[in-house]
Amino acid sequence: MDQLNNNIALRTIRKVNEGRFTDSHDLLAAEEPLEISLAYNSGISVGQKIISVTMRTPGNDAELAVGFLFTEGIIQDPQQIRSVNGIPFTENKILVTLNEEARPVLQRTERNFYTTSSCGVCGKASIDAIKTVSVFPVTNDDIVIDAGLIYLLPEKLREKQVSFNSTGGLHASALFDLAGNFMMLREDVGRHNALDKVIGGAFTENKLPLSESILLLSGRASFELVQKAMMAGIKIIAAIGAPSTLAVEAAEEGGITLVGFLRNESFNIYSNNRRIKINK
Amino acid sequence: MDQLNNNIALRTIRKVNEGRFTDSHDLLAAEEPLEISLAYNSGISVGQKIISVTMRTPGNDAELAVGFLFTEGIIQDPQQIRSVNGIPFTENKILVTLNEEARPVLQRTERNFYTTSSCGVCGKASIDAIKTVSVFPVTNDDIVIDAGLIYLLPEKLREKQVSFNSTGGLHASALFDLAGNFMMLREDVGRHNALDKVIGGAFTENKLPLSESILLLSGRASFELVQKAMMAGIKIIAAIGAPSTLAVEAAEEGGITLVGFLRNESFNIYSNNRRIKINK
Repeated sequence: MDQLNNNIALRTIRKVNEGRFTDSHDLLAAEEPLEISLAYNSGISVGQKIISVTMRTPGNDAELAVGFLFTEGIIQDPQQIRSVNGIPFTENKILVTLNEEARPVLQRTERNFYTTSSCGVCGKASIDAIKTVSVFPVTNDDIVIDAGLIYLLPEKLREKQVSFNSTGGLHASALFDLAGNFMMLREDVGRHNALDKVIGGAFTENKLPLSESILLLSGRASFELVQKAMMAGIKIIAAIGAPSTLAVEAAEEGGITLVGFLRNESFNIYSNNRRIKINK
Repeated sequence: MDQLNNNIALRTIRKVNEGRFTDSHDLLAAEEPLEISLAYNSGISVGQKIISVTMRTPGNDAELAVGFLFTEGIIQDPQQIRSVNGIPFTENKILVTLNEEARPVLQRTERNFYTTSSCGVCGKASIDAIKTVSVFPVTNDDIVIDAGLIYLLPEKLREKQVSFNSTGGLHASALFDLAGNFMMLREDVGRHNALDKVIGGAFTENKLPLSESILLLSGRASFELVQKAMMAGIKIIAAIGAPSTLAVEAAEEGGITLVGFLRNESFNIYSNNRRIKINK
């Protein structure tokens, strides 16, 4: 993948349209973790603390760090800030140093921040970590499905997506078997929750690994979603929306076929083309 | 707001279309926090620990809890689970109890989960908490803008959104002044990051509170985004997509005018209608 600038990367992909394919390229939104740390004088001693790790698109990192500290109520005034710096010799880390008199409000960070699933701080390292942690290691398979089967998935999802149709506010994750038969659908305001519900349901019924299933995502494909799918042994992910850079890298290294922009008898294949047969 | 079922609520709204309005109703996707706790035998003692708090749509909570524990590598096998129960006399809490022999992998939870901004566990209580924490308390104002000005915002955003146009993978947050003039745009794979960047930029330049600005969101409006906007003193939020239940409640109580489904000269007003003038 070629990094064009901070927030866009160029990747070679396979474009599929009405039964034909061309090898082409696509621009991807960059996704990388950012660890935000705060250095401050507690009144007793000088402390430094990791406040948050968030998956973000690189660029305006100082604004992101300062904005996060403010919107979470930890700092109140720009005068409290002495400096905002990337941490030398590390990537994806930023340190906000407060003035000696400034007292951050950190009680809330323990109680009121919530965790979402994740990944660690370095994208590449976390992909390796998942491969180690997963109960279902990456194995060889000879799964092949027809491109025509993929085209039909969004319409099948829409037929089942009652809540989405009425509110327009829910993300969906759905499972289909390798013949394209509908198996399961869950919806949620959080896309990671919809996927956790699908995998949790299959897990409870002892149906893992889901290596004989296709996962359909109603929106974009982030790193987090690919990571969760990988944990469940899923081999094929089709997303209606765009994938991020780190999602594509995780799919590539995790042996997952990742399809994006699935609309109107066309889609892009971002990794592991081999599982999708196209009658060119 | 009337809760129709677990994941949909009905709300009275103002629909605006080509300069006319009707008072109507809309179905909203429900959004509530869920605190997931784990009870387990550590080998030395019996422990109980809050693992995660996530904003989710109620329904299939047991699947969500179990799926989360599995996809995060904390449990590996359905046989490890003794029971999954809502915690009596509390809302939005669920407890997964493991068998005596099961040993959850919790080392990763300290290191690898990341926090995102938040809210606490009870929706209503968190709205109150924000009102207390905010540097800019809710005050009266007589801001009024024309509906016609709101129609023009999405096109102005698209003109500025270079990255989004090329990748389709970025969320945007933009600020406009009360005359509809473009002020600032930030994009990110995470919608909360795009907003933190906007607010962080304004904060750094000592431009808070943003009570004389309109915030435009490229996608849906979640509780988290309304909460962050409230912290920055924003009075008018316009979202291209749908709002969630908790986003609307937060906007209502925080004195924010929340517009959703802003498309093709039409939109819905979910709270505090008074700031939008319509030439009916």
